[in-house]
Amino acid sequence: MTRILFYLDGYPHDAWRHAVQAAIPGVDFRGNPDWGNPEDGPAYAFVWEPEPGLLARYPNIKAIFSLGAGIDHLMRDPDLPRNVPVIRMGDDALHEGMREYLTMATLMFHRQLPQLIAAQRHGKWGRVFSPAASHVRVGIMGYGTLGHVVADSLSAFGYQISGWTRRERAPEPGRTLYHGDEGLRPFLRASDILLCLLPETPETKGLLEAETLAELPKGAAIVNAGRGGLVVLEDLIAALDSGHLAGAMLDVFPVEPLPVDHPAWEHEKIIITPHVAAITRPHTAAEYVARNIARIERGERPENLLDLDTGY
Amino acid sequence: MTRILFYLDGYPHDAWRHAVQAAIPGVDFRGNPDWGNPEDGPAYAFVWEPEPGLLARYPNIKAIFSLGAGIDHLMRDPDLPRNVPVIRMGDDALHEGMREYLTMATLMFHRQLPQLIAAQRHGKWGRVFSPAASHVRVGIMGYGTLGHVVADSLSAFGYQISGWTRRERAPEPGRTLYHGDEGLRPFLRASDILLCLLPETPETKGLLEAETLAELPKGAAIVNAGRGGLVVLEDLIAALDSGHLAGAMLDVFPVEPLPVDHPAWEHEKIIITPHVAAITRPHTAAEYVARNIARIERGERPENLLDLDTGY
Repeated sequence: MTRILFYLDGYPHDAWRHAVQAAIPGVDFRGNPDWGNPEDGPAYAFVWEPEPGLLARYPNIKAIFSLGAGIDHLMRDPDLPRNVPVIRMGDDALHEGMREYLTMATLMFHRQLPQLIAAQRHGKWGRVFSPAASHVRVGIMGYGTLGHVVADSLSAFGYQISGWTRRERAPEPGRTLYHGDEGLRPFLRASDILLCLLPETPETKGLLEAETLAELPKGAAIVNAGRGGLVVLEDLIAALDSGHLAGAMLDVFPVEPLPVDHPAWEHEKIIITPHVAAITRPHTAAEYVARNIARIERGERPENLLDLDTGY
Repeated sequence: MTRILFYLDGYPHDAWRHAVQAAIPGVDFRGNPDWGNPEDGPAYAFVWEPEPGLLARYPNIKAIFSLGAGIDHLMRDPDLPRNVPVIRMGDDALHEGMREYLTMATLMFHRQLPQLIAAQRHGKWGRVFSPAASHVRVGIMGYGTLGHVVADSLSAFGYQISGWTRRERAPEPGRTLYHGDEGLRPFLRASDILLCLLPETPETKGLLEAETLAELPKGAAIVNAGRGGLVVLEDLIAALDSGHLAGAMLDVFPVEPLPVDHPAWEHEKIIITPHVAAITRPHTAAEYVARNIARIERGERPENLLDLDTGY
């Protein structure tokens, strides 16, 4: 019988329990804090931000699965057992999740759903006339592999797509590409809906601030699913308040969770999602864990095994 | 110079003015109530629910364009000039609009956006774990031409699709088809997200009431973009309040606008949109009008010319 020691704080474990039970029939699923006795025999850990020192107290752990692709949450534990294999999450959440989230956000701003939800709060039957998708220009900031996945999804609806990258890319039929500092402002001026997917680097930090946001067309919307540091929130709020921008949907923030007293929480033109755009999905993650436990049990190498010395 | 007498009550005309000006350079666009003098020379009317008798007072009108595909709003006018051609709207709003609206609604319920918006109102950073799209079953109720357009859009995301029709249809690869009374309950039991596209007929009126809604899986969501009479709102609200259903997005209602005192307005699990799923889009509509004015001026027959005697 396979034993799973599951750790996730602050969320109900039901969805995870069901998913793991479906992927590993007969599994002994133990969610924190009920991990039981370390002498209960071999087990696999499946964890997110576990309490430091906890994993070291269970010498029966044969492998540690991270609930997400990132493993910072494990490396922070000074007592992380060095002799136990660590396996990163390798489900399809990143590509699928981003495609879903950014297609949803684009459709919502195109079809003016935030305005309709606000009208509902005021009990107002306020019909809106949206343009055809072929008249809406979507700018993808950070047009790499992930940006292309999103662009292909949006092209199916007929949106006009442009992409911005740091360095020049080969031209693509039907898409307008911009790059570098000199391409940034023309790119922004042609983006009715701006989708940010950039990583945070010294070059991208604070890239969207008062002056660059002012380049967006009046009535534009902005979606940030990259990193929180890309957007200067105070400047974004000012651009929303002045009426220059129509709305924003933010999944990432300079500090997460977003502090409880931050004005973005109550801003009627901002939709906040709590860093879930590409979050791990229980069923696919559980299937991934089941597949890799089977590999380990057969003496094979699991997928995405981490080298603790190099950190990747 | 082309003259347009535009009529739309209760909404700003700006988007329409800009769209018509873009489609017909140099146009003399006159929005109600400023239609000017009937003796100003030939004009085209472009109207929605015009005040009865108004069109008859402008004998200079060469043709009447309806702002939507429906023409009930014109036929209600006892003084509608019988000798003036009437042209229905024939843009792509129906297929494109429904595809966008129902894809958006499906993504929103799949990714639990209504719960995230509610969490934001309470200032709560409440992460949610959504299943992979391949684990979400979307049931399309009314699986005709429009239903297929929506199904194809959703298939690209990996959703499991089923369809229900009154009469049996030929099987389709990768989709589960149900039909008739005997297929209704199995279909509902397999729909995590139910999309209603049915027209209102004596057979479909009130089809979704307490007993049929109870067949949906616990936690299911329902989207109605068909006709308001399909769903018994009181029963839907009861199913949401009991926790059996997770959410609803409604674009159509038994009486429209939805009366101001209806409890649906303030229900936190209901998103109300004011019959805009497939609303006419200014730019494409203006291009349609421009194209057909050019046909009329060349002495050709316009598209979608109405026969006032048969009514279609």
